[in-house]
Amino acid sequence: MARIVMKFGGTSVANLDRIRHVAGLVAAEAEAGNEVAVVVSAMSGETNRLVAFVDALDADSNDGGAIEDEYDHIVASGEQVTSGLLAIALRRRGLKARSWLGWQIPLMTDFAYSKARISGIQSPAMDESLKSGTIGVVAGFQGITSDNRISTLGRGGSDTSAVAIAVALKADRCDIYTDVDGIYTTDPRIVKEARRLDRISFEEMLELASLGAKVLQTRSVELAMNNDLPIRVLTSMAEDGTPNPGTLVCNEVNDMEERVVSGVAYSRDEAQITLLALKDQPGMVAKVTAAMAQANVIVDMIVQGISRADNAANLTFTVGSRDLEKAIAALEAAKDEIGFEAIKSDDNVSKVSVVGIGMRSHTGVAQTMFEALADRNINVEVIATSEIKISVLIDSEYTELAVRALHAAFELEKA
Amino acid sequence: MARIVMKFGGTSVANLDRIRHVAGLVAAEAEAGNEVAVVVSAMSGETNRLVAFVDALDADSNDGGAIEDEYDHIVASGEQVTSGLLAIALRRRGLKARSWLGWQIPLMTDFAYSKARISGIQSPAMDESLKSGTIGVVAGFQGITSDNRISTLGRGGSDTSAVAIAVALKADRCDIYTDVDGIYTTDPRIVKEARRLDRISFEEMLELASLGAKVLQTRSVELAMNNDLPIRVLTSMAEDGTPNPGTLVCNEVNDMEERVVSGVAYSRDEAQITLLALKDQPGMVAKVTAAMAQANVIVDMIVQGISRADNAANLTFTVGSRDLEKAIAALEAAKDEIGFEAIKSDDNVSKVSVVGIGMRSHTGVAQTMFEALADRNINVEVIATSEIKISVLIDSEYTELAVRALHAAFELEKA
Repeated sequence: MARIVMKFGGTSVANLDRIRHVAGLVAAEAEAGNEVAVVVSAMSGETNRLVAFVDALDADSNDGGAIEDEYDHIVASGEQVTSGLLAIALRRRGLKARSWLGWQIPLMTDFAYSKARISGIQSPAMDESLKSGTIGVVAGFQGITSDNRISTLGRGGSDTSAVAIAVALKADRCDIYTDVDGIYTTDPRIVKEARRLDRISFEEMLELASLGAKVLQTRSVELAMNNDLPIRVLTSMAEDGTPNPGTLVCNEVNDMEERVVSGVAYSRDEAQITLLALKDQPGMVAKVTAAMAQANVIVDMIVQGISRADNAANLTFTVGSRDLEKAIAALEAAKDEIGFEAIKSDDNVSKVSVVGIGMRSHTGVAQTMFEALADRNINVEVIATSEIKISVLIDSEYTELAVRALHAAFELEKA
Repeated sequence: MARIVMKFGGTSVANLDRIRHVAGLVAAEAEAGNEVAVVVSAMSGETNRLVAFVDALDADSNDGGAIEDEYDHIVASGEQVTSGLLAIALRRRGLKARSWLGWQIPLMTDFAYSKARISGIQSPAMDESLKSGTIGVVAGFQGITSDNRISTLGRGGSDTSAVAIAVALKADRCDIYTDVDGIYTTDPRIVKEARRLDRISFEEMLELASLGAKVLQTRSVELAMNNDLPIRVLTSMAEDGTPNPGTLVCNEVNDMEERVVSGVAYSRDEAQITLLALKDQPGMVAKVTAAMAQANVIVDMIVQGISRADNAANLTFTVGSRDLEKAIAALEAAKDEIGFEAIKSDDNVSKVSVVGIGMRSHTGVAQTMFEALADRNINVEVIATSEIKISVLIDSEYTELAVRALHAAFELEKA
């Protein structure tokens, strides 16, 4: 017997038929003798409906203060409805079940309404309820502040609350059900030979999550890693009875090392900025990053070089494409302070990365990567590396070609 | 400065424009220097949408136990949304406001989910918040049980929770906003001379409420009467700036006595049952009422008589027309036990009543009433009286005629 937390997102509980199907998946785990807690999102579309109400009223005037506390009070109702409906669907299958809201657990958070962080979970009542064989159906995404008001965890929050609840309940595993059946070696829409991985390490998953693979939210993976809680990613769309092994995200185990590269990730939401003819003086890079930090822009890849043309120092870095305008405005404002002649920018770039914990102990990955790109005449603008990944910035139009070339070069289609 | 509780039903907060309008009404009371708490229902249609979800899942099978706890958990979300939206609309008018859920007040109830009764309200936090000039926006209809789960108060529950909160907050008055502008001498759709009453006593209002005038829920009037809390009934539909005095429901005051009859009420939802040729023995009526109580049927008017035709004892009584089939089945089942020959029934009957606390000290009301009906050849089937009302059961097709005749006979069109 194990204790399992299962998490279902909005498309998995989109309507009553999907909720009935989810009840079947939950029933199977319970009937196998496990203690089960389920974390659910709002039915898809519901949060948007509620947010539209709030936005319309919010736009009425500039009077009054912040409204994030009431925003949370309102949108948290979406998960409240789903949790009650799933509890009913489970009872109608003859199982014991009850719903839990954030304040009933309680799941305590700070006061950062609409993007709150979990500060603690005390769940003796829920623990007891699970032990008695009652399935707990938890409204995800929500908590309670110390002054007794509802808070929500912000984007991706229900993954995070599922993992946090699993940690608090000392669960053996947290199963995240989504619309894909696991973590793939790369995006199957680009590479048809892409293969589902049986296992992946937390570290690799973190690199893949932050590199643009949208399956798991970064915060939830960090939390699982810090607490050594295995996460399984699997689909909620499988027909009853179909094998649905998914991908286990867990601590590094020995056999993982044999695989040098686990996956290829890409992101199109990148923009490149180059500052030309910089005064080459100490602290110059710090001034640039300070200007970006002040403008709330995250700098990703960064490289300093000498222009071949005029032998002046240049600095190239990348930001999210949505931040490009803001970044340029901040740089223009700090032009004298930083000391450069001109700004060049380009948001027609993509970042493509290979990730694998085997890279720690294997050499030759960079060589294989750059040869594969060179063979296709793909020019690399910027390179960034970590212990377990190599990322390159390339012209966007080569994105698919680069992903396919790298997937083939590392033979990721082979088990 | 007074402390006022304002209550708005579903049609008053049906959409964002109605919510903005309500915010204007609330703002006027607050800006006049009053401490204000507002109790709101779900946006109209929302509760039905949620109940439809529950009903669909509930119909899936006969397995599992009761689901009323989850029903309450789900439908309470409707009022949660409205309370947050109104708080935002108030802030956008530059006012201080915050929402309150049943569990945040807390409004304690018993465990009768979906029809819970209020067991107590401790509201020190809300009291303090109101004193600081913050408008409290309360989700109506909901409370919390002693094991920390959401309960709802059932039909008409938000009137009752508004009055209960007003009592707990020691409010000076509870204003119930509805789609009519007060309590009328009778239904204006039937009598165009019907007149809005400035004041009406609790006792009269209770008779009118239980006699079919649907403006205020009986439980809320009882609660106000027991706590001597004046209720004002007024419309939420008035344009800004229009006088909107409504009707004050309050303890009897001297000038009320001058008015013998305050109003004429009617109800078409009546059915008449006659048991023919009863064995005339002690306890016979008790056996009938016991059979009805067991079938959960409420018996209203009751009269025992001797049939002119065969000189046998007959018993005639009325039940709600929706209960007629159930009542007849229960009587048939207890036929031997009770001892009668046949059942006659008729659901083509209406109850028409005149109500007035002046009847306590004035004679001649019955005479005026029966003369007015006799003048129009309206036959009276059953009569029932209390200290402050006389009700008659008549053939349905004379309903409007009887109401108009009585309204004219008591000169209710005159102030």
